[in-house]
Amino acid sequence: MALVVEKFGGTSVADTGRIQEVADHVARVRRRGDDVVLVVSAMGDETDELLRLARRVSDDPPGRELDMLITGGERKACALVAMAIAARGVPAVSFTGSQAGFLTNTAHTSALILSITPDRVAKAVADGVVPVVGGSQGVSTDKDITFLGRGGSDTTAVALAHALGADACELYTDVPGVFTADPRMAPEARCMDWISFEELLDMTATGCPKPTIRSVELARTYGVKLHVRSAFTWAPGTWVTGEDLMERAVISAVTHDVSEAKMTVSGVADKPGVAARLFRALARRDVNVDMIVQNVSRDGITDISFTIPAEQLAIAREVVFGLQGDLEASGASADDDIARVSLIGAGMQTHPGVAARMFETLAAESINIEMISTSAIRISCVIRAGDIDRAVVALHKAFELDKAPEDRAGL
Amino acid sequence: MALVVEKFGGTSVADTGRIQEVADHVARVRRRGDDVVLVVSAMGDETDELLRLARRVSDDPPGRELDMLITGGERKACALVAMAIAARGVPAVSFTGSQAGFLTNTAHTSALILSITPDRVAKAVADGVVPVVGGSQGVSTDKDITFLGRGGSDTTAVALAHALGADACELYTDVPGVFTADPRMAPEARCMDWISFEELLDMTATGCPKPTIRSVELARTYGVKLHVRSAFTWAPGTWVTGEDLMERAVISAVTHDVSEAKMTVSGVADKPGVAARLFRALARRDVNVDMIVQNVSRDGITDISFTIPAEQLAIAREVVFGLQGDLEASGASADDDIARVSLIGAGMQTHPGVAARMFETLAAESINIEMISTSAIRISCVIRAGDIDRAVVALHKAFELDKAPEDRAGL
Repeated sequence: MALVVEKFGGTSVADTGRIQEVADHVARVRRRGDDVVLVVSAMGDETDELLRLARRVSDDPPGRELDMLITGGERKACALVAMAIAARGVPAVSFTGSQAGFLTNTAHTSALILSITPDRVAKAVADGVVPVVGGSQGVSTDKDITFLGRGGSDTTAVALAHALGADACELYTDVPGVFTADPRMAPEARCMDWISFEELLDMTATGCPKPTIRSVELARTYGVKLHVRSAFTWAPGTWVTGEDLMERAVISAVTHDVSEAKMTVSGVADKPGVAARLFRALARRDVNVDMIVQNVSRDGITDISFTIPAEQLAIAREVVFGLQGDLEASGASADDDIARVSLIGAGMQTHPGVAARMFETLAAESINIEMISTSAIRISCVIRAGDIDRAVVALHKAFELDKAPEDRAGL
Repeated sequence: MALVVEKFGGTSVADTGRIQEVADHVARVRRRGDDVVLVVSAMGDETDELLRLARRVSDDPPGRELDMLITGGERKACALVAMAIAARGVPAVSFTGSQAGFLTNTAHTSALILSITPDRVAKAVADGVVPVVGGSQGVSTDKDITFLGRGGSDTTAVALAHALGADACELYTDVPGVFTADPRMAPEARCMDWISFEELLDMTATGCPKPTIRSVELARTYGVKLHVRSAFTWAPGTWVTGEDLMERAVISAVTHDVSEAKMTVSGVADKPGVAARLFRALARRDVNVDMIVQNVSRDGITDISFTIPAEQLAIAREVVFGLQGDLEASGASADDDIARVSLIGAGMQTHPGVAARMFETLAAESINIEMISTSAIRISCVIRAGDIDRAVVALHKAFELDKAPEDRAGL
């Protein structure tokens, strides 16, 4: 008899028909004797609709009021899900974040969990009642209702799984699991059975849609087993684990990201303090710098390139062009017609041929590489946006990602 | 500097445009130096929409879950209203029923208030912040969220006005106040400046739409001054008070009700226990009996007539026809083509000519009276449904209700 925390995302409970299917699933789980705790997100795009209402009455709604408003979405969903389960003869009870024992700080709209005291949730489980918890919410030390932020239901589920000592945390979503590439781009993409926390973290940061980085980091910290799976097919999906995998693949996936822009500051002196001044100025304007590449200097002069979210390009331009004289740079340029393609794989640390094959593959497609950045388990290349589809397909094929790890030829 | 609790009903906050108008109003009130506490209902028909969702996932949703679901409507409205007020530079903060200190019993979907500890609301007022409280809700002794029932926001407002020692409780709605008759039926109907609690209670029970009986009774018990007024014109409406009025009108209003049906049990023995058995049997089936009339007996035999909500007629029929033999009644009949017209007036106690003029007026219109029932401040006649328009207009004219009380000729 296992105890599993199951989180259902917005598309999984988008309408009453979907809610009925989730309730049928819970009834099946209970019939086979397992205990389950549900965490639910707001229905469909309800959060966006609530935000639209807020923007119609205020240009700058107070965070406290936004949280009061938005958390209502998850609350509505968890009440309806509890009703639907109860209608199947399985006792169920809904809990707000506060009732489930989530104490947070007072950082409204993106509150951090301080502690969890899930007594009411645990008692419900012990009584044979299915608890249905509103995701992404809690009560602050000031006794105000707080929202953990967009996608915070993943965090609620992982934190609750840890607090309850659950056997696993299953994140139900509208995709079958984590893929070796975006299936819309690479039709041969395969749903992986297993992936490591580290790989998933690097994928999440490079264009893979879900789950949230925050929840994956929390799961890794507390050793909570994650299972990313579909609430539409109910088939097993991808397990995320910290355990060492016997059949570790060299490369797990190829991911891409078309949401960034690139800036280059050229001809600056290669001396201490230059980069610091540049990136401090960007940080002051809340620009999220992602990749940073500084070339080897020639005659004490170097270029610094970095990528940022495309929607922050205007602010970044302002900062960089304002600093150009100060930094004694010979030039500065901005470019939002770029894309990033990345290879993800915990196994690449011990396989030196990966980078070479990646560059060869792109070269064979006549795709020019404009920036390169690497981590222990990732190699990313910035290329022209128009080349991204061909890059993903070619790399997916070159590394045989359509095959199960044990069937690949190796490097 | 007055402290006023202002309640805004569903139509008053039906959309973001309406919410903006309410916020403008609050800013005006604050500019003139008065303190205000808001109580808001769910936007428009949101409560009905939430109930529709519930019915789609469950034939018999648990009360606890219904309350979790439905109270979200008021919560959404109060967050949006608080944002809109804050956007006008007036600090505002929303409170759920629980945060406002409403402790209730555990009777879900129609919980009763046990106590109010409005510390956070009072502190907000002291700090110059406008509190916006979600109507019709609280937290139960079991720490679950409770709903006070449909129309419960009136009760929230009155109870809060009493707990805070407010100078008045204003119920903002979509009509200008309490009228001398339904203006759709009697175009000459006049909005009254004043009415007594007792008269309003009798009007509420005889077809006048609002405020709820429960809130009026609470206001009378605690001596809370009520002001029923429009959130569309913002003009002064009708004050409801327990104070003795100098210019008390003999008759305040003529009201009507077309939602009832009539049943008659004829030829029963006029002896103890007969009526008791009949009405006990109806009560067991939750039939809400309103008027009861028993004629003087002739030869120890009498008829008993009573009115009930038309939608309960089928159940009442079943009960009555089932009991007919038992009661040794010679017959039983049901009729849902009736209407009730009532004269309301605290002054009629000391003016014996009122009933006579009412019956004369109806007779002059050739309207037959089928049942008569009186209280200290009301005379009601059951007539044919088709005669109700003419009855209301004729009585309104006969008692000069279109004129201010001091301008009437008298009886």
